[in-house]
Amino acid sequence: MAKIVVLGAGVMGTALCVPAAENNHAVLLVGTPLDGDIVTAMRLPGGVHPKLDDALSDNVETIPFDALRSDHLGDADYIIVGVSSPGIVWVTDVLNRLMTVARPVAFVTKGLVSAGSTVSTYAQTLPSRIPMMSAFIGIGGPCIARELANRLPTASIYACEDISIAEQFAATMATDYYRLSITTDVTGVEACAALKNFFAIGVSAMQTGYPDQKRADGQSKNPTAAAFTQASLEMARLCERLGGDSATAFGLAGLGDLHVTVGGGRNSRLGHGLGTGRSVLDVLSSDLFGETVEGVDTARALETMVPEKSSSEGEAPHYFPLASAILDAVIRQKLFSLDFSRLVVR
Amino acid sequence: MAKIVVLGAGVMGTALCVPAAENNHAVLLVGTPLDGDIVTAMRLPGGVHPKLDDALSDNVETIPFDALRSDHLGDADYIIVGVSSPGIVWVTDVLNRLMTVARPVAFVTKGLVSAGSTVSTYAQTLPSRIPMMSAFIGIGGPCIARELANRLPTASIYACEDISIAEQFAATMATDYYRLSITTDVTGVEACAALKNFFAIGVSAMQTGYPDQKRADGQSKNPTAAAFTQASLEMARLCERLGGDSATAFGLAGLGDLHVTVGGGRNSRLGHGLGTGRSVLDVLSSDLFGETVEGVDTARALETMVPEKSSSEGEAPHYFPLASAILDAVIRQKLFSLDFSRLVVR
Repeated sequence: MAKIVVLGAGVMGTALCVPAAENNHAVLLVGTPLDGDIVTAMRLPGGVHPKLDDALSDNVETIPFDALRSDHLGDADYIIVGVSSPGIVWVTDVLNRLMTVARPVAFVTKGLVSAGSTVSTYAQTLPSRIPMMSAFIGIGGPCIARELANRLPTASIYACEDISIAEQFAATMATDYYRLSITTDVTGVEACAALKNFFAIGVSAMQTGYPDQKRADGQSKNPTAAAFTQASLEMARLCERLGGDSATAFGLAGLGDLHVTVGGGRNSRLGHGLGTGRSVLDVLSSDLFGETVEGVDTARALETMVPEKSSSEGEAPHYFPLASAILDAVIRQKLFSLDFSRLVVR
Repeated sequence: MAKIVVLGAGVMGTALCVPAAENNHAVLLVGTPLDGDIVTAMRLPGGVHPKLDDALSDNVETIPFDALRSDHLGDADYIIVGVSSPGIVWVTDVLNRLMTVARPVAFVTKGLVSAGSTVSTYAQTLPSRIPMMSAFIGIGGPCIARELANRLPTASIYACEDISIAEQFAATMATDYYRLSITTDVTGVEACAALKNFFAIGVSAMQTGYPDQKRADGQSKNPTAAAFTQASLEMARLCERLGGDSATAFGLAGLGDLHVTVGGGRNSRLGHGLGTGRSVLDVLSSDLFGETVEGVDTARALETMVPEKSSSEGEAPHYFPLASAILDAVIRQKLFSLDFSRLVVR
């Protein structure tokens, strides 16, 4: 039996408590300053997370952030960070303030960090900023939190430079319904987790861009399949440029997570709006007002890495027609347009 | 301007006439003995294919098979075979009877041929059987015929051992909406085209196997994404065993075509039935009575290549849990069951 502390009581942090508790570990779920209402709701007898369907089991204790003590973290075998990307600064501060014993930390939180012309993943930037983190573990793969919390079959991938730590943590968390691959390509997993949000915008735009009234879902299929394939290929190239292994993009962290992200969630809703000829400002200021669309943050970080449209017509590995079209729409505020007449999927 | 003969007036053969005619080539569309009603309908003034939305342009002439003459084939720059797999024997016979001049032949028709423990693609078996075929061209990628006929963005891949022939044929056929990649991996394209039907059965079974009443389409997403990823990985391994390049499975011919095949068509309908706990005999004898389900033919050919479930728990490249589950259901007539509790996607 292990002790696990989960920082962040959003849907993903909370969902990860389910397999952990199923394996009889003692789990402490810690709300962030923004999770006050969630923590209050969950601490009631039989309390349920407002966005999930069922209560957690008795071996999960939910507390607010100001009840978190240094010894909670010192006693933990694993710390899981489940905040969304804007919360990463808060988490870094909390860990540096309260960690007195070196511990492995696993991150659900994803993002790309750009400094000048260098783009990095959290796997590259966080270890030096959190000195007491003994190992950085990246969690990737196609996982809708509510489905994991409902014990539906879910496959994910855990990445750590030290494969034995990834293996131990996977053995700690795996259940019959939560199946885990492991890899040392932590940079690749982190890169793909951020990239898939970005590419989901473009693939989703192709879903609504070519309506077909003879189909139940109203969408043509050939344009989406072409874009999904192209997204996988470009994701592999960008993954490699960011320091990861291109093969990671063809597994759970890449095309697997892209598959689940297209057709659901905020990145996809932005894409669906762009595909019908609306501008990014229009969609972000109405349907998605006040919401974090992580693919937009990824777009900002990628801007320097992907050549502008006019220069994106070379051969692989320099060919990024879909990424260019997404950047044109999201950053340069043009209407979304994948120039299909010049596309060669490769 | 080229001359193109298309053998088979099904939806795919007919749809390929659209970009060919758009490029001002002279196209002769030849019905098979089973296409009598189609040919009659299309030869009326303004006649439309019964399963498509619009009439073909004037530079396409539709004729019945008994009007096909030797000089039609001798004059053609390219012959395209668009029959379904049961028609391949008929086509081979027609070509051998009427071809007197060596010509390149492009095949939409796909299938695996098993002889003893050897499994081959048409790219390997047909060249020696059709002596007047100067080059075998394989056509792959995600292409729903009706969408191509409606000039919707469609990306496909043309494969020929002689890359210059693939390039010339692609230049002949490409339009603004029909974009073509080329490759020399003809065996890989042919293998993937057959394999994607097979794997679409399993991925589609995972779509209906875990209902979610809170979603518009009623389907959970994590199980499908896990299965789609696993299908891509197993397709790459089988592609390699069949003599192709595993990278082909991660492009248009592989995961691209799988993407379009899951959720539509007969293979997917079989999978949807299996996913709800029905037997293969039940689904094939009711919903799909009298129809050709090409993934079932692929399953028969693969039976000797994939180890039985009990021995499918090794490491890659010998790990085929999804293929085993599909074979168990389709060939061994068990209820479909992907043993998720032992799955490691890799």
